[in-house]
Amino acid sequence: MTHAINDEALDRIFRTARTQNKWFDKPISITHLMAIYDLTRWGPTSANVSPARFLFLISKDAKQRLKPHLLPGNVEKVMTSAATAVIGYDLDFPELIPKLFPHNPGAKDWFKDPKLRETTAFRNGTLQGAYFIIAARALGVDCGPMSGFDNASVDKEFFAGTNVKSNFLCAIGHGDPTGVLARSPRLSFDEACKIL
Amino acid sequence: MTHAINDEALDRIFRTARTQNKWFDKPISITHLMAIYDLTRWGPTSANVSPARFLFLISKDAKQRLKPHLLPGNVEKVMTSAATAVIGYDLDFPELIPKLFPHNPGAKDWFKDPKLRETTAFRNGTLQGAYFIIAARALGVDCGPMSGFDNASVDKEFFAGTNVKSNFLCAIGHGDPTGVLARSPRLSFDEACKIL
Repeated sequence: MTHAINDEALDRIFRTARTQNKWFDKPISITHLMAIYDLTRWGPTSANVSPARFLFLISKDAKQRLKPHLLPGNVEKVMTSAATAVIGYDLDFPELIPKLFPHNPGAKDWFKDPKLRETTAFRNGTLQGAYFIIAARALGVDCGPMSGFDNASVDKEFFAGTNVKSNFLCAIGHGDPTGVLARSPRLSFDEACKIL
Repeated sequence: MTHAINDEALDRIFRTARTQNKWFDKPISITHLMAIYDLTRWGPTSANVSPARFLFLISKDAKQRLKPHLLPGNVEKVMTSAATAVIGYDLDFPELIPKLFPHNPGAKDWFKDPKLRETTAFRNGTLQGAYFIIAARALGVDCGPMSGFDNASVDKEFFAGTNVKSNFLCAIGHGDPTGVLARSPRLSFDEACKIL
């Protein structure tokens, strides 16, 4: 244990960070996308399974392919943000275990049961999705995560022929603060936590 | 978009942070537990559903109750760390939506389908589990997340009579750096990401 990181950092990743709903028309560099992933990938996953996959839609064509699968409220956000990441998880993650978990390549066989494989991919891919949001914020990139879309049809459109399943979307870029909503309340410690 | 947080903070939350396997025999204050939750709760969830629940096991008795449900490799970690958080998600989260999403209390009814309710709770509870890990690290508290335990029997032991389901465990406290393993490789940008 040591001291906390500085207040600017705590504010940026948690305390004053806000979900963006409106975007300035400015691009994001590929260097930024790579830098976000480069932080994200160090976040911990069970047996280092690292199942998350990130599809960055930056071209108008790619966003048009996503558009019909979105809830109406998310269309403008996807079309106007610098990029929308389709964050997925790969059910074939065990194949990479010999590379990712070199001290125990046999861990590949821990995930033969399809239910455990699905749960492990979803849980750990989602952890990585959260690391992605925090990593983007930490690098000064605004985020707008979204769940409102048809997962099955997005999988068909973007992940056909693979075992990757979509999890959630995250618009990233230059947020317009006028689109930020009033902050909703959170649960108190006593409502969400218990000490035994 | 703005500049990145400082290198110390990036290192602490991602670049040099490591999963702990061995713990010094030093307690953690309740103030620290509350501070970790106080950051965690600001992380974004879909419609602010905030389904994660955190049970902090700090007493010897509470840890003894968890012990029989752990894989053998995790017993020592739970028993010797300052606290182990049982991170769960509450399937009854829709009941709190009128409080958490006050501008649209009817969002409660979006989750009547049990499958959607389960997926939403698991996805968003897991995002919050990742926020918890990052929040603890940001405050200088070492983490050791663990999936190796029997979820159903932990639910019976700790969440009987509720609709809370266990997700994963996270030991927290004062990590002994001699227990940290060599860092396993991560996927490159090209292996995990694609730009369209």
